[in-house]
Amino acid sequence: MTEFIPPGTRWFELPSPFPMKRGGALHGARIAYETWGELDAARGNAILIVTGLSPDAHAAANPGNPEPGWWESMLGPGKPIDTDRWFVVCVNSLGSCKGSTGPASIDPATGGPYRLDFPELSIEDGADAAAAVVHGLGIQRLACVIGNSMGGMTALALLQRHPGIAGSHINISGAARALPFSIAIRSLQREAIRLDPNWDQGGYDDATYPESGMRMARKLGVITYRSALEWDGRFGRVRLDSDRRDDDAFGLEFEVESYLEGHARRFVRRFDPNCYLYLSRSMDWFDLGEQFGGDVMRGLAAIRIDKALAIGVRTDILFPLQQQEQIADGLRAGGCQADFLPLESPQGHDAFLVDFERFGPAVRGFLDALRPSAHALKA
Amino acid sequence: MTEFIPPGTRWFELPSPFPMKRGGALHGARIAYETWGELDAARGNAILIVTGLSPDAHAAANPGNPEPGWWESMLGPGKPIDTDRWFVVCVNSLGSCKGSTGPASIDPATGGPYRLDFPELSIEDGADAAAAVVHGLGIQRLACVIGNSMGGMTALALLQRHPGIAGSHINISGAARALPFSIAIRSLQREAIRLDPNWDQGGYDDATYPESGMRMARKLGVITYRSALEWDGRFGRVRLDSDRRDDDAFGLEFEVESYLEGHARRFVRRFDPNCYLYLSRSMDWFDLGEQFGGDVMRGLAAIRIDKALAIGVRTDILFPLQQQEQIADGLRAGGCQADFLPLESPQGHDAFLVDFERFGPAVRGFLDALRPSAHALKA
Repeated sequence: MTEFIPPGTRWFELPSPFPMKRGGALHGARIAYETWGELDAARGNAILIVTGLSPDAHAAANPGNPEPGWWESMLGPGKPIDTDRWFVVCVNSLGSCKGSTGPASIDPATGGPYRLDFPELSIEDGADAAAAVVHGLGIQRLACVIGNSMGGMTALALLQRHPGIAGSHINISGAARALPFSIAIRSLQREAIRLDPNWDQGGYDDATYPESGMRMARKLGVITYRSALEWDGRFGRVRLDSDRRDDDAFGLEFEVESYLEGHARRFVRRFDPNCYLYLSRSMDWFDLGEQFGGDVMRGLAAIRIDKALAIGVRTDILFPLQQQEQIADGLRAGGCQADFLPLESPQGHDAFLVDFERFGPAVRGFLDALRPSAHALKA
Repeated sequence: MTEFIPPGTRWFELPSPFPMKRGGALHGARIAYETWGELDAARGNAILIVTGLSPDAHAAANPGNPEPGWWESMLGPGKPIDTDRWFVVCVNSLGSCKGSTGPASIDPATGGPYRLDFPELSIEDGADAAAAVVHGLGIQRLACVIGNSMGGMTALALLQRHPGIAGSHINISGAARALPFSIAIRSLQREAIRLDPNWDQGGYDDATYPESGMRMARKLGVITYRSALEWDGRFGRVRLDSDRRDDDAFGLEFEVESYLEGHARRFVRRFDPNCYLYLSRSMDWFDLGEQFGGDVMRGLAAIRIDKALAIGVRTDILFPLQQQEQIADGLRAGGCQADFLPLESPQGHDAFLVDFERFGPAVRGFLDALRPSAHALKA
């Protein structure tokens, strides 16, 4: 049971008890976060970033941690999310193992890790925790909340449950609810972990980490995060040199297999399997239309926000383009000035992590057009 | 090590030794096949069907086995492949466990099952075996060879390696070579089997069948055989009744998870894991451009055939539509009258097994327009 906390992480203590949507409460829980830029006097220039399943709060280099972050090209002085202008907060999701409280954290009631005694985790819990951080930093209204992938779900839950918390929203490859193809893939990833005898109903330790299950889950993730189109161009049918093949019957032979293996190796033992299971399932449960009889469009239309941009990628099979179009349509039905931007990136769901030529201008353009209300008041 | 042979199966003894493309040879090998209709006096009305990875030769009911087959709606008197007019042969693939010789068969050299001592299997070996059956039945020239999925690869290999063996070809959701996205998925399916401790380097028996690995492989297969679009309409976010859920943490909750589980249960213990590994890898290796420096279009253009129809499905992520368009383009470049027919079926790669409203007329129309050369001569 290891947590994986980058240097320079800061923590926000959640209210204790912190009630969970599906029942139970956390005691002494905390959220890891990092910040960039300066909050202006009117506290009107704040942007919140909520992330996908696996990232930590270290989205980009900052004084606390000069190492490049997972969105380094998007965030910093002069970059699309310009930290000369904006005060940016990125939170590590509740339930993660990258600093925020989750199944790998110590349960104060027992002194041991929560494991499967962690209460059922929902996207809404993550949203509530992020809202607590925002308010705790003295911010009443964010200029914008940006959510990627799972973070696109978290951002919508935040807007639904905390009216007025943000003036605008960028949803990147997100969704207003989980659909069965994505549920099926995540269910299979969880099954791979659960079938690993080392998982042991969540009882593994560092010596018995369920490596095979996590490797399978990660490889399936990478397959669904990218696209056939990208891989055709990138790998084709290129084979590994014979000295890079293993001797196993049915072992690695094609470059694409080696690429998957490399991704898996970099992931396993750096993410806690129980946290993975909890976060994965929270996505399946998410449905913004839940309190509207399953009508997700009504859920979206009930959100009050001024401006929004929903960006999707045509090659995304996990959060397909129609889901971002639905977000824009639904928010617009609620009176929001919402745009839908389909991108032709070949990289699939993960395009926002690599295709900065397309995502950079889109995000920059939206943010440049915002007038932080405080600035407007001062002018 | 069990073979799964439908009643009424007939066998064709392959020449012995039967040389394998990647080395080695089979001794005393045989191919399971079934037939429908009557071969005409001129032997000009024969159609060969080559299949995907898992089907047996029982494509439809016949006197030897009145049970419905896997393509029952397509094949029979008055059906799109009209057995009142055509003599139809369907072969079980070499390397399968449904009657043809494969890794689960007895190796005459040892008296025990081949397991991993079976020689490396290629699509081309399956094509050579199918050609032997065709010639062995006294057919010099097929009116048409029809290949689905993996069978679309086998059919192209047959046409490449046995010039003149067929006058026409219907390629359904096939490919002229494997591309990296499909290789990645199949590689992961094989890894799931290989990671199952019961697999034991192919040494399992009925009591230690690698059920978990096969279940994972099958579920991943089903996910990639269908489409998100179909599942949205079919399952949505419908949950199982509480009495159909299991008590496991992270157990089945959504209908789509139960659907996958049902598919997996019907597959495991009815397919031999080593056969699965061999057939799966044979697809990864397939490249019709191999002898043309990897130029698959040259490989296609070198095929001599009169007419062809390549049918694909827009929602297919495993054998994407561009691959069937490529087949038609390549055959046309070789002088064939080749059409490409993209279908809007929502069912993805498996549409040819279910969407008979679209596939039926397409196949019927192509076959109706054929004039068996012998008929033409007699007229």
